[in-house]
Amino acid sequence: MSVAGEFDLIARYFTRPAKRAPLGVGDDCALLAPAPGMQLAVSSDMLVEGRHFLSTVDPAKLGHKALAVNLSDLAACGAKPLAFTLALSLPTKDEAWLEGFSRGLFALADAHGCELVGGDTTRGPLNICITVFGEVPAGGALLRSGAKADDDVWVSGTLGDARLALEVFRGTLSLPAELFELARARMEQPTPRVALGLALRGIASAAVDISDGLVGDLEHVLRASGVGGRLDADAAADRLALVAHATGASAGLDREARRACALAGGDDYELAFTAPESARKAVEQAGHAANTPVTRIGRIEMEAGLRIVDAQGAPVVQRFASFDHFA
Amino acid sequence: MSVAGEFDLIARYFTRPAKRAPLGVGDDCALLAPAPGMQLAVSSDMLVEGRHFLSTVDPAKLGHKALAVNLSDLAACGAKPLAFTLALSLPTKDEAWLEGFSRGLFALADAHGCELVGGDTTRGPLNICITVFGEVPAGGALLRSGAKADDDVWVSGTLGDARLALEVFRGTLSLPAELFELARARMEQPTPRVALGLALRGIASAAVDISDGLVGDLEHVLRASGVGGRLDADAAADRLALVAHATGASAGLDREARRACALAGGDDYELAFTAPESARKAVEQAGHAANTPVTRIGRIEMEAGLRIVDAQGAPVVQRFASFDHFA
Repeated sequence: MSVAGEFDLIARYFTRPAKRAPLGVGDDCALLAPAPGMQLAVSSDMLVEGRHFLSTVDPAKLGHKALAVNLSDLAACGAKPLAFTLALSLPTKDEAWLEGFSRGLFALADAHGCELVGGDTTRGPLNICITVFGEVPAGGALLRSGAKADDDVWVSGTLGDARLALEVFRGTLSLPAELFELARARMEQPTPRVALGLALRGIASAAVDISDGLVGDLEHVLRASGVGGRLDADAAADRLALVAHATGASAGLDREARRACALAGGDDYELAFTAPESARKAVEQAGHAANTPVTRIGRIEMEAGLRIVDAQGAPVVQRFASFDHFA
Repeated sequence: MSVAGEFDLIARYFTRPAKRAPLGVGDDCALLAPAPGMQLAVSSDMLVEGRHFLSTVDPAKLGHKALAVNLSDLAACGAKPLAFTLALSLPTKDEAWLEGFSRGLFALADAHGCELVGGDTTRGPLNICITVFGEVPAGGALLRSGAKADDDVWVSGTLGDARLALEVFRGTLSLPAELFELARARMEQPTPRVALGLALRGIASAAVDISDGLVGDLEHVLRASGVGGRLDADAAADRLALVAHATGASAGLDREARRACALAGGDDYELAFTAPESARKAVEQAGHAANTPVTRIGRIEMEAGLRIVDAQGAPVVQRFASFDHFA
């Protein structure tokens, strides 16, 4: 953990005194002390220019997003954010960029009481690697492996918005300006569902955060749990994709495009989770307490695999992976 | 923490069952549970091609080094390695590279009982970001801030070897083949001084690992401790730079070059540490127990700043930072 000589300036933007950690930025290691009976949840995500963000993105929004995608992993485990490390590779020492990036990063960090405890800066192609630490009661983490037959499948918030914004940037879609701004905000500044994850401790049987698309991430849960499931494509497409729904007509989005956005859009950072039917009221109360909409969109079944059906229960066939409606 | 679809193959090289961590690779987070009374030491380092390693490096050696530089941070804190996360950006899905890299990585990890608990893989310019976790008794970590006036300054192992190898690669120096191989091994596969760090718990007053060069890293200790110091340049140059010493004549290295290698070479991953004069015997026993040479090279003083002197105590003037003897 070191700051190279020529990058000393960078330290200025990222060095703040540790508040809760026994030791923060500036030594060889940071020290973390989970409270008695708590385990430490850890996750790392790496963001690369051109792949995870556009070179034109506002650095403050990028600072937000780089931490948000990591907090989303903590949320999916029901962990309370504590601290993070930041490793940053930068092509040039751009002070305006550093000011904006650190501002966006710390705004979100402060909102979640999550402190920067260490890191590394170096010269190289733009790359942001954050490792985040959260606290969860021993044995109380939400895992991917806990789904059981007859559990309900739920999802938080809305789906597909980030993908719509991406397609506008790609030129394959146009949206009315005010709706594009909504979608773009969802793409550039996703809201990690930390409060919901905490509220679902002891209620949800399994959880995952949706980064690659609902179907793909839900399949991780099914495989880890050794079960299968049934997903109502239209519950997802019609009720959840905020922008797709709002602009179905005006944006010229047909049902297939709405389904694709909702089911395989990617970059949503919502939670998909399962819970017993007996916990429906508790799930709704958790959503209410966390000020986060929750929607029931499917069911866990014994038979392996995910069956995607329409509102009438008929199979929906779609090449979600390639998302070939666009492009 | 996710593995993108096209990179699923990569997971094969890095997924092994967790042995000690409550939850390892494959969920949104890993879970770590430090033993009662222990704190978690955390460090992140990012390695970028062209800056931290050459594109021609053997991937197995790179796997070793990527983890070694992180273990060296744990060593400097006196922490026992527990686990690490790996975030990897790769330009192409090169199976031979992945096989070699993961082999070198796991060989060192296994030697230290340090298990991979999570990570991220993505496509992009080659970048390796490891975050490492170790355990240290609460209040027992070796810090940079504990040096006191009249403490001795010590260094482990040998210094400057990696820099000599680098200069051979740069074409500014030639070495006899067998000595070049020794220097190259020190550059490509540094030995993290984990056992020494553990043995120095309760003995050393401050410690740092030497990644940027002895003088620069020792100055971090002086500043953090609010003290100054005196360093015997020739104790460092003549006794410590293994290769420089062995080949002083045959490689045509003059005294200034040997000093520069030892004092500002960089990439050494030795420990510089301080301890009271009364602990000299204990330090030597710690070095013996850890099978690691330790050499006394200076003294902590009240007056701020680092004074570099020769064997006669006369000031040594040298532009270590620019290392302009080479290039």
